[in-house]
Amino acid sequence: MHRVKVRVVEDALDANNTIARANRDDFDRHGVTVVNLMSAPGAGKTTLLERALRDLEGVRVGVLEGDVQGSLDADRLASLHVPVVQLNTGNGFGGECHLDANMVRSAMPSLPLEDIDLLIVENVGNLVCPAEFRIGEDARVMVSSVAEGEDKPLKYPLMFRACELVVLNKIDLLPHLDFDLEKWAQRLQAVHPGVHTLLVSARTGEGVEAFRDWLAALPERRLVEA
Amino acid sequence: MHRVKVRVVEDALDANNTIARANRDDFDRHGVTVVNLMSAPGAGKTTLLERALRDLEGVRVGVLEGDVQGSLDADRLASLHVPVVQLNTGNGFGGECHLDANMVRSAMPSLPLEDIDLLIVENVGNLVCPAEFRIGEDARVMVSSVAEGEDKPLKYPLMFRACELVVLNKIDLLPHLDFDLEKWAQRLQAVHPGVHTLLVSARTGEGVEAFRDWLAALPERRLVEA
Repeated sequence: MHRVKVRVVEDALDANNTIARANRDDFDRHGVTVVNLMSAPGAGKTTLLERALRDLEGVRVGVLEGDVQGSLDADRLASLHVPVVQLNTGNGFGGECHLDANMVRSAMPSLPLEDIDLLIVENVGNLVCPAEFRIGEDARVMVSSVAEGEDKPLKYPLMFRACELVVLNKIDLLPHLDFDLEKWAQRLQAVHPGVHTLLVSARTGEGVEAFRDWLAALPERRLVEA
Repeated sequence: MHRVKVRVVEDALDANNTIARANRDDFDRHGVTVVNLMSAPGAGKTTLLERALRDLEGVRVGVLEGDVQGSLDADRLASLHVPVVQLNTGNGFGGECHLDANMVRSAMPSLPLEDIDLLIVENVGNLVCPAEFRIGEDARVMVSSVAEGEDKPLKYPLMFRACELVVLNKIDLLPHLDFDLEKWAQRLQAVHPGVHTLLVSARTGEGVEAFRDWLAALPERRLVEA
Protein backbone atom coordinates (compact mmCIF):
# COMPACT_ATOMS: atom_id res chain seq x y z
CA MET A 1 0.00 0.00 0.00
CA HIS A 2 2.90 2.30 0.72
CA ARG A 3 4.37 1.53 -2.70
CA VAL A 4 1.18 2.66 -4.38
CA LYS A 5 1.15 5.84 -2.32
CA VAL A 6 4.74 6.77 -3.20
CA ARG A 7 4.00 6.04 -6.86
CA VAL A 8 1.09 8.48 -6.83
CA VAL A 9 3.21 11.15 -5.17
CA GLU A 10 5.88 10.78 -7.83
CA ASP A 11 3.34 11.01 -10.66
CA ALA A 12 1.92 14.16 -9.11
CA LEU A 13 5.39 15.69 -8.85
CA ASP A 14 6.13 14.82 -12.49
CA ALA A 15 2.90 16.45 -13.61
CA ASN A 16 3.74 19.47 -11.47
CA ASN A 17 7.17 19.82 -13.05
CA THR A 18 5.68 19.81 -16.54
CA ILE A 19 3.37 22.70 -15.63
CA ALA A 20 6.20 24.49 -13.81
CA ARG A 21 8.23 24.42 -17.03
CA ALA A 22 5.31 25.95 -18.93
CA ASN A 23 5.07 28.69 -16.28
CA ARG A 24 8.78 29.26 -16.60
CA ASP A 25 8.50 29.63 -20.39
CA ASP A 26 5.79 32.28 -19.92
CA PHE A 27 7.86 34.16 -17.35
CA ASP A 28 10.93 33.98 -19.60
CA ARG A 29 8.99 35.28 -22.59
CA HIS A 30 8.10 38.37 -20.54
CA GLY A 31 11.57 38.71 -19.03
CA VAL A 32 10.20 38.26 -15.53
CA THR A 33 12.42 36.81 -12.78
CA VAL A 34 10.49 34.81 -10.18
CA VAL A 35 11.25 34.22 -6.50
CA ASN A 36 9.44 31.57 -4.48
CA LEU A 37 9.38 32.85 -0.89
CA MET A 38 8.70 30.19 1.72
CA SER A 39 8.60 29.89 5.52
CA ALA A 40 6.71 28.51 8.50
CA PRO A 41 3.57 30.43 9.55
CA GLY A 42 4.48 33.70 11.23
CA ALA A 43 8.19 33.76 10.32
CA GLY A 44 7.72 37.26 8.92
CA LYS A 45 7.65 36.94 5.11
CA THR A 46 5.12 39.74 4.65
CA THR A 47 6.80 42.15 7.07
CA LEU A 48 10.11 41.48 5.35
CA LEU A 49 8.55 42.27 1.96
CA GLU A 50 6.89 45.42 3.33
CA ARG A 51 10.30 46.62 4.44
CA ALA A 52 12.31 45.47 1.44
CA LEU A 53 9.96 46.54 -1.36
CA ARG A 54 9.35 50.03 0.01
CA ASP A 55 12.73 51.33 -1.20
CA LEU A 56 13.51 48.86 -3.96
CA GLU A 57 14.64 51.01 -6.85
CA GLY A 58 15.30 50.20 -10.50
CA VAL A 59 13.29 46.98 -10.45
CA ARG A 60 9.56 46.80 -11.09
CA VAL A 61 8.13 44.27 -8.63
CA GLY A 62 4.86 42.38 -8.40
CA VAL A 63 3.68 39.96 -5.71
CA LEU A 64 1.61 36.79 -5.97
CA GLU A 65 0.26 36.15 -2.51
CA GLY A 66 -0.56 32.56 -1.56
CA ASP A 67 -2.83 31.83 1.40
CA VAL A 68 -5.28 29.12 2.35
CA GLN A 69 -7.90 31.85 2.65
CA GLY A 70 -8.29 35.59 3.15
CA SER A 71 -6.22 38.45 1.80
CA LEU A 72 -4.68 39.99 4.94
CA ASP A 73 -1.11 39.93 3.58
CA ALA A 74 -2.10 41.08 0.09
CA ASP A 75 -3.92 44.07 1.61
CA ARG A 76 -0.78 44.97 3.59
CA LEU A 77 1.43 44.83 0.49
CA ALA A 78 -1.04 46.64 -1.77
CA SER A 79 -0.56 49.74 0.40
CA LEU A 80 3.01 49.89 -0.99
CA HIS A 81 1.56 50.53 -4.48
CA VAL A 82 3.02 47.24 -5.67
CA PRO A 83 0.71 45.15 -7.88
CA VAL A 84 -0.50 42.23 -5.75
CA VAL A 85 -2.54 39.23 -6.88
CA GLN A 86 -4.16 37.01 -4.25
CA LEU A 87 -4.19 33.25 -4.78
CA ASN A 88 -6.26 31.28 -2.25
CA THR A 89 -5.62 27.56 -2.01
CA GLY A 90 -8.95 27.05 -0.22
CA ASN A 91 -11.20 28.00 -3.16
CA GLY A 92 -11.41 25.09 -5.57
CA PHE A 93 -8.04 23.71 -4.52
CA GLY A 94 -9.31 21.83 -1.46
CA GLY A 95 -7.46 23.86 1.19
CA GLU A 96 -3.97 22.98 0.02
CA CYS A 97 -1.03 23.68 2.35
CA HIS A 98 1.27 24.85 -0.46
CA LEU A 99 1.28 26.42 -3.89
CA ASP A 100 1.88 24.17 -6.86
CA ALA A 101 2.60 24.94 -10.52
CA ASN A 102 -1.03 24.53 -11.54
CA MET A 103 -2.28 27.07 -8.99
CA VAL A 104 0.32 29.59 -10.17
CA ARG A 105 -0.73 28.80 -13.76
CA SER A 106 -4.34 29.60 -12.89
CA ALA A 107 -3.21 33.02 -11.62
CA MET A 108 -1.15 33.74 -14.75
CA PRO A 109 -3.85 35.75 -16.61
CA SER A 110 -4.13 38.09 -13.59
CA LEU A 111 -0.40 38.78 -13.33
CA PRO A 112 0.83 42.06 -14.85
CA LEU A 113 3.81 40.37 -16.56
CA GLU A 114 4.26 43.21 -19.07
CA ASP A 115 4.79 45.72 -16.28
CA ILE A 116 7.17 43.93 -13.90
CA ASP A 117 10.74 42.62 -13.85
CA LEU A 118 10.51 40.61 -10.66
CA LEU A 119 7.63 38.52 -9.33
CA ILE A 120 7.76 37.46 -5.71
CA VAL A 121 5.49 34.54 -4.89
CA GLU A 122 4.72 34.41 -1.18
CA ASN A 123 3.95 30.76 -0.55
CA VAL A 124 1.60 29.33 2.11
CA GLY A 125 3.24 29.24 5.55
CA ASN A 126 4.52 25.65 5.83
CA LEU A 127 7.96 24.05 6.14
CA VAL A 128 7.13 20.76 4.42
CA CYS A 129 5.15 20.67 1.17
CA PRO A 130 6.05 24.01 -0.50
CA ALA A 131 9.62 22.72 -0.92
CA GLU A 132 8.33 19.75 -2.95
CA PHE A 133 6.53 21.73 -5.64
CA ARG A 134 8.34 23.80 -8.25
CA ILE A 135 6.18 26.63 -9.59
CA GLY A 136 8.44 27.88 -12.39
CA GLU A 137 10.65 30.06 -10.19
CA ASP A 138 14.25 31.19 -10.74
CA ALA A 139 15.18 31.23 -7.07
CA ARG A 140 13.81 29.92 -3.83
CA VAL A 141 14.20 31.86 -0.61
CA MET A 142 13.19 30.70 2.82
CA VAL A 143 12.65 32.81 5.91
CA SER A 144 13.24 31.23 9.31
CA SER A 145 12.54 33.07 12.55
CA VAL A 146 14.90 32.77 15.51
CA ALA A 147 11.79 32.25 17.66
CA GLU A 148 11.30 28.86 15.94
CA GLY A 149 14.46 27.49 17.54
CA GLU A 150 17.86 26.36 16.35
CA ASP A 151 16.81 22.79 15.52
CA LYS A 152 14.70 23.62 12.45
CA PRO A 153 17.32 22.84 9.73
CA LEU A 154 17.57 19.29 11.11
CA LYS A 155 13.81 18.83 11.40
CA TYR A 156 12.85 20.24 7.99
CA PRO A 157 15.98 19.55 5.91
CA LEU A 158 14.23 19.46 2.52
CA MET A 159 13.06 23.05 2.93
CA PHE A 160 16.47 24.34 4.03
CA ARG A 161 18.12 22.36 1.22
CA ALA A 162 15.72 23.51 -1.50
CA CYS A 163 16.53 27.22 -1.31
CA GLU A 164 19.29 29.45 -2.66
CA LEU A 165 19.00 31.94 0.20
CA VAL A 166 18.09 31.49 3.87
CA VAL A 167 16.97 34.65 5.67
CA LEU A 168 17.14 34.34 9.45
CA ASN A 169 14.55 36.83 10.69
CA LYS A 170 13.62 38.43 14.05
CA ILE A 171 17.23 38.71 15.21
CA ASP A 172 16.07 41.59 17.46
CA LEU A 173 14.65 38.82 19.68
CA LEU A 174 18.01 37.05 20.13
CA PRO A 175 18.75 38.65 23.54
CA HIS A 176 15.44 37.24 24.82
CA LEU A 177 15.77 33.67 23.54
CA ASP A 178 17.90 30.57 24.20
CA PHE A 179 18.98 30.55 20.56
CA ASP A 180 22.58 29.63 19.76
CA LEU A 181 23.32 31.32 16.44
CA GLU A 182 26.49 29.32 15.90
CA LYS A 183 24.71 26.03 16.50
CA TRP A 184 21.96 27.03 14.05
CA ALA A 185 24.56 27.98 11.40
CA GLN A 186 26.38 24.66 11.88
CA ARG A 187 23.15 22.73 11.48
CA LEU A 188 22.20 24.71 8.39
CA GLN A 189 25.62 24.08 6.85
CA ALA A 190 25.32 20.36 7.64
CA VAL A 191 22.02 20.24 5.75
CA HIS A 192 22.89 22.68 2.94
CA PRO A 193 26.64 23.36 2.73
CA GLY A 194 27.54 26.82 1.45
CA VAL A 195 24.00 28.20 1.27
CA HIS A 196 23.87 31.99 1.29
CA THR A 197 22.48 33.36 4.56
CA LEU A 198 21.29 36.79 5.70
CA LEU A 199 20.49 37.82 9.27
CA VAL A 200 17.71 40.38 9.45
CA SER A 201 15.08 41.96 11.64
CA ALA A 202 12.15 42.94 9.48
CA ARG A 203 10.78 44.72 12.55
CA THR A 204 13.74 47.04 13.21
CA GLY A 205 15.02 47.04 9.63
CA GLU A 206 18.44 45.64 10.57
CA GLY A 207 19.93 43.69 7.66
CA VAL A 208 16.97 44.36 5.34
CA GLU A 209 19.14 46.38 2.95
CA ALA A 210 21.22 43.30 2.16
CA PHE A 211 18.04 41.40 1.31
CA ARG A 212 16.82 44.31 -0.83
CA ASP A 213 20.15 44.33 -2.69
CA TRP A 214 19.94 40.57 -3.21
CA LEU A 215 16.45 40.96 -4.72
CA ALA A 216 17.45 43.93 -6.87
CA ALA A 217 20.44 42.08 -8.34
CA LEU A 218 18.46 38.95 -9.17
CA PRO A 219 17.04 39.89 -12.61
CA GLU A 220 20.51 40.86 -13.87
CA ARG A 221 22.18 37.80 -12.31
CA ARG A 222 19.62 35.65 -14.08
CA LEU A 223 20.48 37.22 -17.46
CA VAL A 224 24.19 36.64 -16.89
CA GLU A 225 23.60 33.01 -15.95
CA ALA A 226 21.25 32.37 -18.87
CA MET B 1 -10.42 18.92 -12.95
CA HIS B 2 -11.00 20.66 -9.64
CA ARG B 3 -14.15 18.61 -9.09
CA VAL B 4 -12.16 15.42 -9.43
CA LYS B 5 -9.55 16.74 -7.03
CA VAL B 6 -12.05 17.67 -4.34
CA ARG B 7 -13.72 14.28 -4.79
CA VAL B 8 -10.42 12.52 -4.16
CA VAL B 9 -9.77 14.61 -1.06
CA GLU B 10 -13.19 13.72 0.31
CA ASP B 11 -12.67 10.02 -0.34
CA ALA B 12 -9.33 10.18 1.42
CA LEU B 13 -10.88 11.91 4.42
CA ASP B 14 -13.67 9.30 4.56
CA ALA B 15 -11.11 6.50 4.52
CA ASN B 16 -9.14 8.32 7.20
CA ASN B 17 -12.18 8.64 9.45
CA THR B 18 -12.87 4.91 9.19
CA ILE B 19 -9.35 4.11 10.37
CA ALA B 20 -9.55 6.83 13.04
CA ARG B 21 -12.62 5.10 14.46
CA ALA B 22 -10.75 1.79 14.59
CA ASN B 23 -7.89 3.53 16.45
CA ARG B 24 -10.39 5.02 18.82
CA ASP B 25 -11.90 1.61 19.55
CA ASP B 26 -8.44 0.27 20.39
CA PHE B 27 -7.66 3.21 22.66
CA ASP B 28 -11.05 2.84 24.38
CA ARG B 29 -10.51 -0.85 24.94
CA HIS B 30 -7.33 -0.01 26.83
CA GLY B 31 -8.87 2.96 28.64
CA VAL B 32 -6.37 5.34 27.05
CA THR B 33 -7.29 9.00 26.52
CA VAL B 34 -5.63 10.55 23.48
CA VAL B 35 -4.62 14.16 22.83
CA ASN B 36 -3.65 15.36 19.35
CA LEU B 37 -1.17 18.22 19.90
CA MET B 38 -0.72 20.51 16.91
CA SER B 39 1.10 23.75 16.05
CA ALA B 40 3.24 25.53 13.49
CA PRO B 41 6.95 24.59 13.43
CA GLY B 42 8.76 26.02 16.43
CA ALA B 43 5.72 27.06 18.44
CA GLY B 44 7.09 25.12 21.40
CA LYS B 45 5.08 21.89 21.66
CA THR B 46 8.04 19.82 22.85
CA THR B 47 9.28 22.37 25.39
CA LEU B 48 5.72 22.66 26.72
CA LEU B 49 5.53 18.87 27.11
CA GLU B 50 8.96 18.75 28.78
CA ARG B 51 7.70 21.24 31.35
CA ALA B 52 4.21 19.83 31.79
CA LEU B 53 5.00 16.11 31.95
CA ARG B 54 7.84 16.47 34.43
CA ASP B 55 5.49 16.92 37.39
CA LEU B 56 2.34 15.33 36.07
CA GLU B 57 1.17 13.09 38.89
CA GLY B 58 -1.52 10.45 39.05
CA VAL B 59 -1.68 9.94 35.30
CA ARG B 60 0.55 7.55 33.37
CA VAL B 61 1.54 9.32 30.14
CA GLY B 62 3.03 8.16 26.86
CA VAL B 63 4.01 10.22 23.83
CA LEU B 64 3.77 9.43 20.13
CA GLU B 65 6.13 11.80 18.41
CA GLY B 66 5.39 12.74 14.79
CA ASP B 67 8.12 14.24 12.60
CA VAL B 68 8.98 14.22 8.93
CA GLN B 69 12.33 12.78 9.92
CA GLY B 70 14.72 12.47 12.85
CA SER B 71 14.00 11.92 16.53
CA LEU B 72 15.25 15.15 18.15
CA ASP B 73 12.04 15.77 20.07
CA ALA B 74 11.55 12.13 21.05
CA ASP B 75 15.08 12.10 22.49
CA ARG B 76 14.30 15.20 24.54
CA LEU B 77 11.12 13.68 25.96
CA ALA B 78 12.64 10.26 26.60
CA SER B 79 14.93 11.89 29.16
CA LEU B 80 11.79 12.48 31.28
CA HIS B 81 11.39 8.68 31.59
CA VAL B 82 8.13 8.86 29.71
CA PRO B 83 7.60 6.13 27.09
CA VAL B 84 8.07 7.77 23.69
CA VAL B 85 7.45 6.22 20.27
CA GLN B 86 8.81 7.99 17.19
CA LEU B 87 6.70 8.07 14.04
CA ASN B 88 8.44 9.49 10.96
CA THR B 89 6.26 10.56 8.06
CA GLY B 90 9.26 10.47 5.71
CA ASN B 91 9.85 6.71 5.84
CA GLY B 92 7.34 4.97 3.59
CA PHE B 93 4.79 7.76 3.93
CA GLY B 94 6.29 10.02 1.24
CA GLY B 95 7.32 12.91 3.50
CA GLU B 96 3.81 13.78 4.68
CA CYS B 97 3.24 17.14 6.41
CA HIS B 98 0.79 15.72 8.96
CA LEU B 99 -0.15 12.56 10.80
CA ASP B 100 -3.18 10.64 9.62
CA ALA B 101 -5.12 7.77 11.16
CA ASN B 102 -3.26 5.14 9.15
CA MET B 103 0.14 6.32 10.32
CA VAL B 104 -1.02 6.24 13.94
CA ARG B 105 -2.48 2.77 13.28
CA SER B 106 0.92 1.60 12.03
CA ALA B 107 2.47 2.75 15.33
CA MET B 108 -0.19 1.00 17.42
CA PRO B 109 1.80 -2.23 18.06
CA SER B 110 4.67 -0.12 19.47
CA LEU B 111 2.50 1.85 21.89
CA PRO B 112 2.50 0.68 25.54
CA LEU B 113 -1.29 0.96 25.80
CA GLU B 114 -1.45 -1.36 28.83
CA ASP B 115 0.80 0.91 30.83
CA ILE B 116 -0.59 4.39 30.15
CA ASP B 117 -3.74 6.40 30.80
CA LEU B 118 -3.00 9.31 28.52
CA LEU B 119 -1.33 9.32 25.09
CA ILE B 120 -0.13 12.63 23.73
CA VAL B 121 0.42 12.62 19.98
CA GLU B 122 2.75 15.42 18.95
CA ASN B 123 1.79 16.11 15.35
CA VAL B 124 4.08 17.42 12.57
CA GLY B 125 4.58 21.19 12.83
CA ASN B 126 2.03 22.58 10.36
CA LEU B 127 -1.07 24.80 10.67
CA VAL B 128 -2.97 23.39 7.69
CA CYS B 129 -3.23 19.64 7.10
CA PRO B 130 -3.03 18.19 10.64
CA ALA B 131 -6.42 19.79 11.37
CA GLU B 132 -7.99 17.85 8.49
CA PHE B 133 -7.07 14.36 9.68
CA ARG B 134 -8.64 12.73 12.73
CA ILE B 135 -6.36 10.10 14.26
CA GLY B 136 -8.74 8.64 16.86
CA GLU B 137 -8.11 11.31 19.50
CA ASP B 138 -10.37 12.47 22.34
CA ALA B 139 -9.18 16.06 22.31
CA ARG B 140 -7.23 18.34 20.03
CA VAL B 141 -4.93 20.99 21.43
CA MET B 142 -3.09 23.60 19.42
CA VAL B 143 -0.13 25.66 20.51
CA SER B 144 0.38 29.09 18.95
CA SER B 145 3.41 31.24 19.71
CA VAL B 146 3.05 34.98 20.20
CA ALA B 147 6.08 35.34 17.90
CA GLU B 148 3.88 34.13 15.01
CA GLY B 149 1.74 37.26 15.17
CA GLU B 150 -1.83 38.11 16.10
CA ASP B 151 -3.28 37.39 12.63
CA LYS B 152 -2.91 33.62 12.75
CA PRO B 153 -6.49 32.69 13.78
CA LEU B 154 -7.76 34.52 10.66
CA LYS B 155 -5.17 32.96 8.35
CA TYR B 156 -5.48 29.36 9.58
CA PRO B 157 -9.08 29.26 10.85
CA LEU B 158 -9.60 25.50 10.39
CA MET B 159 -6.77 24.75 12.82
CA PHE B 160 -7.99 27.20 15.46
CA ARG B 161 -11.55 25.90 15.00
CA ALA B 162 -10.62 22.22 15.18
CA CYS B 163 -9.26 22.24 18.72
CA GLU B 164 -10.78 22.14 22.20
CA LEU B 165 -7.90 24.08 23.76
CA VAL B 166 -5.65 26.82 22.39
CA VAL B 167 -2.38 27.34 24.26
CA LEU B 168 -0.77 30.70 23.54
CA ASN B 169 2.93 30.12 24.20
CA LYS B 170 6.06 32.27 24.61
CA ILE B 171 4.22 35.02 26.50
CA ASP B 172 7.59 35.94 28.03
CA LEU B 173 8.35 37.54 24.63
CA LEU B 174 5.30 39.87 24.74
CA PRO B 175 7.28 42.91 25.97
CA HIS B 176 9.55 42.56 22.93
CA LEU B 177 6.89 42.15 20.23
CA ASP B 178 4.17 44.21 18.56
CA PHE B 179 1.57 41.66 19.60
CA ASP B 180 -1.83 42.90 20.74
CA LEU B 181 -3.17 40.18 23.04
CA GLU B 182 -6.67 41.60 23.00
CA LYS B 183 -6.76 41.70 19.20
CA TRP B 184 -5.54 38.10 19.04
CA ALA B 185 -8.21 36.99 21.53
CA GLN B 186 -10.93 38.80 19.55
CA ARG B 187 -9.82 37.12 16.34
CA LEU B 188 -9.69 33.72 18.00
CA GLN B 189 -13.19 34.20 19.41
CA ALA B 190 -14.45 35.27 15.96
CA VAL B 191 -13.11 32.03 14.49
CA HIS B 192 -13.91 29.71 17.41
CA PRO B 193 -16.34 31.29 19.89
CA GLY B 194 -15.89 30.14 23.47
CA VAL B 195 -12.79 28.02 22.91
CA HIS B 196 -10.79 27.41 26.08
CA THR B 197 -7.48 29.32 26.09
CA LEU B 198 -4.37 29.21 28.26
CA LEU B 199 -1.50 31.72 28.21
CA VAL B 200 1.84 30.10 28.99
CA SER B 201 5.58 30.43 28.71
CA ALA B 202 7.07 26.98 28.38
CA ARG B 203 10.46 28.66 28.79
CA THR B 204 9.84 30.37 32.15
CA GLY B 205 7.16 27.94 33.31
CA GLU B 206 4.50 30.65 33.67
CA GLY B 207 1.04 29.20 33.16
CA VAL B 208 2.29 25.65 32.61
CA GLU B 209 0.56 24.40 35.76
CA ALA B 210 -2.83 25.20 34.28
CA PHE B 211 -1.95 23.16 31.19
CA ARG B 212 -0.73 20.31 33.38
CA ASP B 213 -3.99 20.37 35.33
CA TRP B 214 -5.97 20.37 32.09
CA LEU B 215 -4.07 17.29 30.89
CA ALA B 216 -4.36 15.51 34.26
CA ALA B 217 -8.13 16.02 34.38
CA LEU B 218 -8.71 14.78 30.84
CA PRO B 219 -8.95 11.00 31.44
CA GLU B 220 -11.54 11.50 34.17
CA ARG B 221 -13.48 14.10 32.17
CA ARG B 222 -13.61 11.65 29.32
CA LEU B 223 -15.14 8.95 31.56
CA VAL B 224 -17.78 11.37 32.82
CA GLU B 225 -18.70 12.42 29.28
CA ALA B 226 -18.81 8.84 27.97
